[in-house]
Amino acid sequence: MEEPNGFAEVATIIDMELEGQHNNEEERESTESNYLRNRTLSSTSVAIVGAKVSHIESLDYEINENDLFKHDWRKRSRLQTLQYVFIKWTLAFLVGLFTGGVATLISLSIENISGYKLRATVNYIDDKRYFMGFAFFAGANFLLTLVAAFITVYFAPTAAGPGVPEIKAYLNGVDTPNMFGATTLFVKIIGSIGAVSAGLDLGKEEPLIHIGSCIASLLGQGGSDSYKLSWHWLRYFNNDRDKRDLITYGSSSGVCAAFRAPVAGVLFALEEVATWWRSALIWRTFFSTAVVVVVLRIFMDYCRSASCGLFGRGGIIMFDVSDVIVRYHFVDIIPVVIIGVIGGLLGSLYNHVLHKVLRLYNLVNEKGKLHKLLLALSVSLFTSICIYGLPFLAKCKPCDSSLSDSCPGTGETGNFKQFNCPNGYYNDLATLLLATKEDAIRNIFSLNTGTEFQVISLLIFFLLYCILGVITFGISVPSGLYIPIILMGSGYGRLLGIAMRPYTKIDQELFAVLGAASLMAGSMRMTVTVCVIFLELTNNLLLLPITMLVLLIAKSVADCFNPSIYEIILELKGLPFLEAHPEAWMRNITVGELADVKPPVVTLEGIEKVRRIVEVLKYTTHNGFPVVDGVIPELHGLVLRTHLLLVLKKKWFLNERRRTEDWEVEEKFTWIDLAERWGKIEDIAVTKDEMEMYVDLHPLINTTPHTVVESLSVAKAMVAFRQVGLRHMIIVPKYQAAGVFPVVGILTRQDLRACNILNVFPHLAKSKSIKKGN
Amino acid sequence: MEEPNGFAEVATIIDMELEGQHNNEEERESTESNYLRNRTLSSTSVAIVGAKVSHIESLDYEINENDLFKHDWRKRSRLQTLQYVFIKWTLAFLVGLFTGGVATLISLSIENISGYKLRATVNYIDDKRYFMGFAFFAGANFLLTLVAAFITVYFAPTAAGPGVPEIKAYLNGVDTPNMFGATTLFVKIIGSIGAVSAGLDLGKEEPLIHIGSCIASLLGQGGSDSYKLSWHWLRYFNNDRDKRDLITYGSSSGVCAAFRAPVAGVLFALEEVATWWRSALIWRTFFSTAVVVVVLRIFMDYCRSASCGLFGRGGIIMFDVSDVIVRYHFVDIIPVVIIGVIGGLLGSLYNHVLHKVLRLYNLVNEKGKLHKLLLALSVSLFTSICIYGLPFLAKCKPCDSSLSDSCPGTGETGNFKQFNCPNGYYNDLATLLLATKEDAIRNIFSLNTGTEFQVISLLIFFLLYCILGVITFGISVPSGLYIPIILMGSGYGRLLGIAMRPYTKIDQELFAVLGAASLMAGSMRMTVTVCVIFLELTNNLLLLPITMLVLLIAKSVADCFNPSIYEIILELKGLPFLEAHPEAWMRNITVGELADVKPPVVTLEGIEKVRRIVEVLKYTTHNGFPVVDGVIPELHGLVLRTHLLLVLKKKWFLNERRRTEDWEVEEKFTWIDLAERWGKIEDIAVTKDEMEMYVDLHPLINTTPHTVVESLSVAKAMVAFRQVGLRHMIIVPKYQAAGVFPVVGILTRQDLRACNILNVFPHLAKSKSIKKGN
Repeated sequence: MEEPNGFAEVATIIDMELEGQHNNEEERESTESNYLRNRTLSSTSVAIVGAKVSHIESLDYEINENDLFKHDWRKRSRLQTLQYVFIKWTLAFLVGLFTGGVATLISLSIENISGYKLRATVNYIDDKRYFMGFAFFAGANFLLTLVAAFITVYFAPTAAGPGVPEIKAYLNGVDTPNMFGATTLFVKIIGSIGAVSAGLDLGKEEPLIHIGSCIASLLGQGGSDSYKLSWHWLRYFNNDRDKRDLITYGSSSGVCAAFRAPVAGVLFALEEVATWWRSALIWRTFFSTAVVVVVLRIFMDYCRSASCGLFGRGGIIMFDVSDVIVRYHFVDIIPVVIIGVIGGLLGSLYNHVLHKVLRLYNLVNEKGKLHKLLLALSVSLFTSICIYGLPFLAKCKPCDSSLSDSCPGTGETGNFKQFNCPNGYYNDLATLLLATKEDAIRNIFSLNTGTEFQVISLLIFFLLYCILGVITFGISVPSGLYIPIILMGSGYGRLLGIAMRPYTKIDQELFAVLGAASLMAGSMRMTVTVCVIFLELTNNLLLLPITMLVLLIAKSVADCFNPSIYEIILELKGLPFLEAHPEAWMRNITVGELADVKPPVVTLEGIEKVRRIVEVLKYTTHNGFPVVDGVIPELHGLVLRTHLLLVLKKKWFLNERRRTEDWEVEEKFTWIDLAERWGKIEDIAVTKDEMEMYVDLHPLINTTPHTVVESLSVAKAMVAFRQVGLRHMIIVPKYQAAGVFPVVGILTRQDLRACNILNVFPHLAKSKSIKKGN
Repeated sequence: MEEPNGFAEVATIIDMELEGQHNNEEERESTESNYLRNRTLSSTSVAIVGAKVSHIESLDYEINENDLFKHDWRKRSRLQTLQYVFIKWTLAFLVGLFTGGVATLISLSIENISGYKLRATVNYIDDKRYFMGFAFFAGANFLLTLVAAFITVYFAPTAAGPGVPEIKAYLNGVDTPNMFGATTLFVKIIGSIGAVSAGLDLGKEEPLIHIGSCIASLLGQGGSDSYKLSWHWLRYFNNDRDKRDLITYGSSSGVCAAFRAPVAGVLFALEEVATWWRSALIWRTFFSTAVVVVVLRIFMDYCRSASCGLFGRGGIIMFDVSDVIVRYHFVDIIPVVIIGVIGGLLGSLYNHVLHKVLRLYNLVNEKGKLHKLLLALSVSLFTSICIYGLPFLAKCKPCDSSLSDSCPGTGETGNFKQFNCPNGYYNDLATLLLATKEDAIRNIFSLNTGTEFQVISLLIFFLLYCILGVITFGISVPSGLYIPIILMGSGYGRLLGIAMRPYTKIDQELFAVLGAASLMAGSMRMTVTVCVIFLELTNNLLLLPITMLVLLIAKSVADCFNPSIYEIILELKGLPFLEAHPEAWMRNITVGELADVKPPVVTLEGIEKVRRIVEVLKYTTHNGFPVVDGVIPELHGLVLRTHLLLVLKKKWFLNERRRTEDWEVEEKFTWIDLAERWGKIEDIAVTKDEMEMYVDLHPLINTTPHTVVESLSVAKAMVAFRQVGLRHMIIVPKYQAAGVFPVVGILTRQDLRACNILNVFPHLAKSKSIKKGN
């Protein structure tokens, strides 16, 4: 499926990072050789986050059933439970409200900035001051790109790109640092406005999804930590389980805000990003998207009466065919199949080329911040030159007076731009290029325009956006792929429509729509979502069957060549995404065999010496430690690194080896403390005296960790791991005999990933078959 | 939430059944007291299937990783894998094709039968031969009901009712016998046509869902077993995992066929029926629904040109407002909230009353088949009398000549029925009642009819359908709830609209639509699906935000009183549905404590004597047996009852205690054999000599059963059980010591149900809180 050398380079980057780390750690490792770290089965968690290799962490959706938790919920009154449910609904409401508000703000800014920019440019052209026009156009674009790229590169590198792969990874259980912070949110908003207004070939749709998720995450943790703006009472939701739900609402709200398509928002979360899903989640997600729709509606109503500049002139429904009777018959199946097949081929080709370009850009990005900035600015300049220059190549066409549209149109929007043509003529390429992306799409989708565009203009349009679509996506600004893909797809769709005119009665503009859909399915491999987006965008039910057919064919064809673009990016970034289906060969290996090649498991005792805890934390990187206790050693449970850090931080030490009382614990910790993540061991100072004291870990131990017997196959372990949403899975022995240690090993996300297992057991790959599609 | 005494009666029925069973078994039990059956933790699986108490079985979604399976897939070529994927897609296509075809057939029959029936009745009325009219009308209805009820009662009792709860249970992992057979399918089709044509207050929508599932199931098992019509090569899909997928396609296709709403079909499967869900499933489900839409479209196109009788005059879009500009403003929130609240209250009240009536009907149904038939016929007669008689109470209204509709209308469809009125006048109640249900809904939803209906007529309409909606659902014919609820809801919506006319500008007909939506959310608690159905039915995006608001409010209000109607039916039937969320008190009890109150687990050895296997199968009802083997006893895996039966049936016995070779196994069994269910032990004869022989179970043992340590909380075990889709969960001990038996117990679906646990541990209920909503 994928080329092995595609990731070799990322692996190199990661290896280099680890190498550096090795040097620092060399001394440490030599002093503590008993905490042997065997790298045969990789459990290092690094990934490229915002073009930088960072350590990532797994999320923990398992309920930590320790004494404190049990005590807490036993104490919890019915009122508190109702309060919890009420706040959760309120948060869903707020996510929708803020996302809707921010989306309006972004649209308003973009439409005004790029509208006035285009208006000024058109004025220069009307005065035949072509050079000044270009200087103004390119300069404005340059400045806007500079702003967007500068804040992205210097303040929040994680805000670059679409953000969707990281959200997908988050909902799968991988936390990437700085992904959902306040800085990222702010940079994403401003950067998005700048980049889209600069006329770059990218959209604000995926950034909106990321923005929605940031808003949700910030609401969940009760505000921003870095800016000391937080409400403590909302901390209640600052745990992995609740945050996962919130980010699901956020991403759905983002889709809804981008397309004004609430059902598509819910389906997007379902099809594309969410790994776990419950009925209650659909229900609240739907509520969030409903709020977004209402907010957008209110703002648009307001802007219709009051002055919002150029906002709202365009509207959001791109292809309003609700009053058109779509005619198609059985024979029209053939062109529809052709669109699907070509869309699939083009989509996978696009993924392939984009993959190569992203790897190339990684090399540039590694060289430093200035290089990133220069790359973005060069792309901006190239875009400006093409968009301004190419329309001069097109032949002026005479206006058709039978059409109701004013021709040549005046101002910055609308069909039939005059550009450099004499009165009574229009430049069709300028209509397509010298407009905002939304306007361009609206123009190419617009009805009764079967003869408006010349083949040569469409060809230039298509080729230009193929090139721009490939070179723009990887630059360091917030960017989305929907718009570039729709632009490409509509171009090729129209061209195909012209080629097939003798054989079918389907309209040109419908070809454009279907072409866009096919390319979306071919590149992003979304089907249900795209279909519903198109249903909600076009507002026409009769289009549905052929849209579906196109999507199905395009996706099936493209799936033969490579995975979806988001999956490619996930792999490229090295995010440990856990797939839904185990590989077939995973049935040939047991978890016991995996445990054998891992370093021996590090366990603690129920009442443990402080020295031992500090050592364990320092010389291992594990995030969970099984606790084994008793005369006959018995698996008592699992204690998390973060809770050990909490204990050290709060200096909750005992002078002798004894069990603590309930009240002692409650005095010290709250349930909310336990959900936080508590820094690093290096930041905690423990005195020599304290080193000899004891800690009673019992109240903090998750007494019911998920366990598997060593004879279980990796395939089944992986399914259980993903379905239940675990972070640690303890392996227990199969034999019952005196002296058998009750813990064989511990499995984490990294241990269950196919590529990591194949590193250690390469012979398994030979038995590999493609039973995955099951 | 629910009343405890609601199920007492079902429990009594079930107890009675078991009592009977006891007597038969008494002798048996006394002979084999060592297979102690302790009934403290109920593991008897009985439920009411088609008004009869039957034994139900759990489904097994776990991959049985035994030697045979491993060998089979290792042998499987890439071509076979592709073939598998291809056939699966083909099946998805066929499910859509057949469901679409059957749906067309049903619609065609119903519209013709009831159309000609109404036309004849109207002719009698036009001739003022009122009594003859009534005799014909009531007689035709009586006959049609008789046909529907007769075949249902005598041939396929499982075809009665909606079938949706059983589908929901199936996808949760509960197999109800005779639910998806060929007879059921056939009876459901004919019965549905009869019952709906008879003018009973029920719809064909849920039956279509059931029909879709039957088609899918039959396709999956390669045809009907009972009728010896089966293709062996399709047997490949006759396993629980593939059938689950197929039935998901089937139910979605059914929804799609019922409402011509493909996206709603997918969402229905997702929100309402499916317990497990994967991205690939959405994708193929969507394909099935797309096929259904295309099939429906082709048939409708065909019927437009050719003659299909009265079919297609009505059409399926009930409320075509796509060309209407829906106006509503911020103040209109208030009436919308009121609709939602009342809809929620009415919906939960309806559920409550229907629950009582269903319990009452159960008492009648128990008395025998004739009683069931008489009940159905009385309801039919009552319905005929009301529908024919009540319009005489309405005052004739003069026609408004400003409207474009012909008034009084002629024939059996359309607004403004003349009925008993003089020329130039119409009877508004006859318009609503003396029509097919679809026509009635279309009339009450129809536009610009703000003054057509009088308050008194609407009140009669609403009250009549409240009564009919309650008394009709439980009779022994295929029946659906959508139409009755929409009828009730539209009636109350219009009434509310008239009451609020001074305060709002929302149109009457919109009130009717919102009323119907609110009642659907109030009774069935579906939100996303209803919303998308309405979106796809009304073809109007602008209605979405207020529809959403109404649905959200109605569901939230109704949730305070009782669960959804389908959940009520599930409980009433005693189907062991496993909820998504564990009860809070389940964290207070471990699986080890559950195992303690269960009878001791029955284990087998790897090479076992035939006598022992026969005894175990005879004297226990377990469906899976842990296999413990070795000098140090070790859990080797789990063997299924059906595989033991297979061994006995095929007489695969050995003379001495030895391991078998691979080729010996392959000669005897295929992988397809293992997926079948192999009858009862009573049907298998084993001679005395054979009793002393041996069986090597090793090749059949699932060597990787899912296990849990005895200290795991029931809450976590339940989540894992449901998420992974298990049938058996083996409990292993926590202690590692010589002499500890490696199996503590075995958990099944019944053991993890809240009500069963509470029977044994009533004290846990005290700690019960409502953290479920999490």
